[in-house]
Amino acid sequence: MLKNMLENVRKNCPLIHNITNYVTVNDCANILIACGAAPIMADDQDEVAEITSICSGLNINIGTLNNRTIESMLIAGKHANELNHPVVLDPVGAGASKLRTETALELLEKLRFSVIRGNISEIKTLASGSGTTKGVDADVADKVTDENLDEVVAFAKAFSRKTGAVIAITGAIDIVANSQNAYCIRNGHPMMSSITGTGCQLSAMTAAYVTANPDHPLEAAAAAVIAMGYAGELAHSRLTDLDGNSTYRNYIIDAIYNMTSEMLERGANYEVR
Amino acid sequence: MLKNMLENVRKNCPLIHNITNYVTVNDCANILIACGAAPIMADDQDEVAEITSICSGLNINIGTLNNRTIESMLIAGKHANELNHPVVLDPVGAGASKLRTETALELLEKLRFSVIRGNISEIKTLASGSGTTKGVDADVADKVTDENLDEVVAFAKAFSRKTGAVIAITGAIDIVANSQNAYCIRNGHPMMSSITGTGCQLSAMTAAYVTANPDHPLEAAAAAVIAMGYAGELAHSRLTDLDGNSTYRNYIIDAIYNMTSEMLERGANYEVR
Amino acid sequence: MLKNMLENVRKNCPLIHNITNYVTVNDCANILIACGAAPIMADDQDEVAEITSICSGLNINIGTLNNRTIESMLIAGKHANELNHPVVLDPVGAGASKLRTETALELLEKLRFSVIRGNISEIKTLASGSGTTKGVDADVADKVTDENLDEVVAFAKAFSRKTGAVIAITGAIDIVANSQNAYCIRNGHPMMSSITGTGCQLSAMTAAYVTANPDHPLEAAAAAVIAMGYAGELAHSRLTDLDGNSTYRNYIIDAIYNMTSEMLERGANYEVR
Repeated sequence: MLKNMLENVRKNCPLIHNITNYVTVNDCANILIACGAAPIMADDQDEVAEITSICSGLNINIGTLNNRTIESMLIAGKHANELNHPVVLDPVGAGASKLRTETALELLEKLRFSVIRGNISEIKTLASGSGTTKGVDADVADKVTDENLDEVVAFAKAFSRKTGAVIAITGAIDIVANSQNAYCIRNGHPMMSSITGTGCQLSAMTAAYVTANPDHPLEAAAAAVIAMGYAGELAHSRLTDLDGNSTYRNYIIDAIYNMTSEMLERGANYEVR
Repeated sequence: MLKNMLENVRKNCPLIHNITNYVTVNDCANILIACGAAPIMADDQDEVAEITSICSGLNINIGTLNNRTIESMLIAGKHANELNHPVVLDPVGAGASKLRTETALELLEKLRFSVIRGNISEIKTLASGSGTTKGVDADVADKVTDENLDEVVAFAKAFSRKTGAVIAITGAIDIVANSQNAYCIRNGHPMMSSITGTGCQLSAMTAAYVTANPDHPLEAAAAAVIAMGYAGELAHSRLTDLDGNSTYRNYIIDAIYNMTSEMLERGANYEVR
Repeated sequence: MLKNMLENVRKNCPLIHNITNYVTVNDCANILIACGAAPIMADDQDEVAEITSICSGLNINIGTLNNRTIESMLIAGKHANELNHPVVLDPVGAGASKLRTETALELLEKLRFSVIRGNISEIKTLASGSGTTKGVDADVADKVTDENLDEVVAFAKAFSRKTGAVIAITGAIDIVANSQNAYCIRNGHPMMSSITGTGCQLSAMTAAYVTANPDHPLEAAAAAVIAMGYAGELAHSRLTDLDGNSTYRNYIIDAIYNMTSEMLERGANYEVR
């Protein structure tokens, strides 16, 4: 199944419209190409509807948002919904400021998302309407562990039921859930949190996966999360003592570039609850 | 000849003003330094004329354009024209949205360009006033091959005659033409299209080359295109099985950094038609 | 002493709010993580005060400024001052345009800075109210050498007395001064100027250092400058003949990631005047 998810991205080469922050935008573009998709970045109100219409999927990331781009997110999102294009939401920093929380909630209210991907604090903020986020990182108090895993799985399923979106909560253990099933994924490496934007990159790649696999949003999102985590493992195994987070960033994108469906199947480490 | 083009960049170290997209801007700055030039990025209406006046050349790239930056492009472009500074246009995504197409056409109407560099779909859009672009990549239907090369060369020469600019159409075969002559360049590697922004980087570097060689815009633009393509070959030969598009991106800039005029002469693969 | 400065960053993991240019923003985020801090980038007027309040320090960098972000710098800066958060100013390109010079002077007038870090031309512009800057690089006429070092040290101390900020002037010889003492630092490598944004990265890292060491702004800023310079040396020693400025960029961030307090003490090359 995972195999097909990856292969469909490489086969269909979906063009993904990204309205995303300027911090990690280059990495988002390169990882989209690495996984087999094609990126276009456009955030002006005068072109976002049109750009969305020539694409097959949309990735909305609220990092470094402003009033101009928030409006563009709404315009593009509505148009993508009309066209039945998959839309992914990355609520970067929801909980860290009222603007981010309210924007994420407004997007959630006005748009239909295929996948919502964030860290546990961001997703909790969306679910409860308020929250605490340590900047753009998850609050330690929220951390997903083996002890609270069932509880978080239940939370993710409930939030999926409420929103109709696949919920991807990423961290030490990743949870990708619809209302019925949750992939609990143990791929990845702790050092991935030393790179800015692995979450943003994953959201962009998730948009590519769900776009190329329109009938399987849960499996597609899970495959993207597994691919990212496994790339983090493969990339880490290449590092020398002198390498740090910058080389690691490059190697993760490289690993996505070189990942085959066989590798993904072999490297996947998950259970469905 | 190519030799001199490169050496003049390293000798004159031209300061290039870039109004460019936020996706690939860091790579544009680094490749400008790598080739021997110096970059400055500035896009606010209140400073672009002044920034242009302290520079020797201007690079206008319409990716991630918006109303604020479009106005800045016009202001800077007019001022650069008054100062007789070379101006390069990269019409990223012309054909993909009305805003991009119309902006590119407006720039073309109001400004005088030394070089226009884009993929075949973007250049066709400028020449015809409309077009189809697969996002920011060329439409497959437009692809330049040995079969249609003469036709595309004639098109490029005609468009150069019309605009007064050197036309650089990059792809599997690159064409750099003025109204009389066309360099048909076969440097490069297919994997270069797996990196976001090799085109943007090339446009920035082309601005440096034409600025450092004001009397030879055709040869200067051709030298920049050949340098980029040859860097793509050299960088590719360094890749291991584990490397992908991210490491490749770094190695291409590295290859530009290390390129000597002798290497460029030796590696160049072109004919003039 | 340097040892403690670095260790406090790793121990306290300060969250740093960055209002910075879109050219080097990704590198700023990654170097903040590499040194042990955490970054958040936010530049909208509607959220900057709130974002500043959840952070412990603020880094204001005026590269690619515009009217929207200038207002955000003022709002965030005032709020950080009220909260007694350290604030760093990087006056990128002050002297290159009236907008940049006047913005830097306005920030200086309205805000209280812990550290001002720039090249010699930028700092002279701030001190005199006008100046000439070669784009974003220092004017050759301003270069700090052994011959004029005492003079520049006296200038830096006087400007520190006037502003109340630690003054960090970086170049071939770095000077980090308060009104009494100046660290003259001879770490670093000439090739660092071949990378866009080593200055921006250093300013971001300086914000982390002064935030984690609130009682020692001079020593903290000096430690950050030494760490950056020594990272430049270590990274340079890894380069092969085929590597250039892009790989060098990665290796410098890697070296910051791997730097221990012992390495910093051992590698430091400075005198206090």
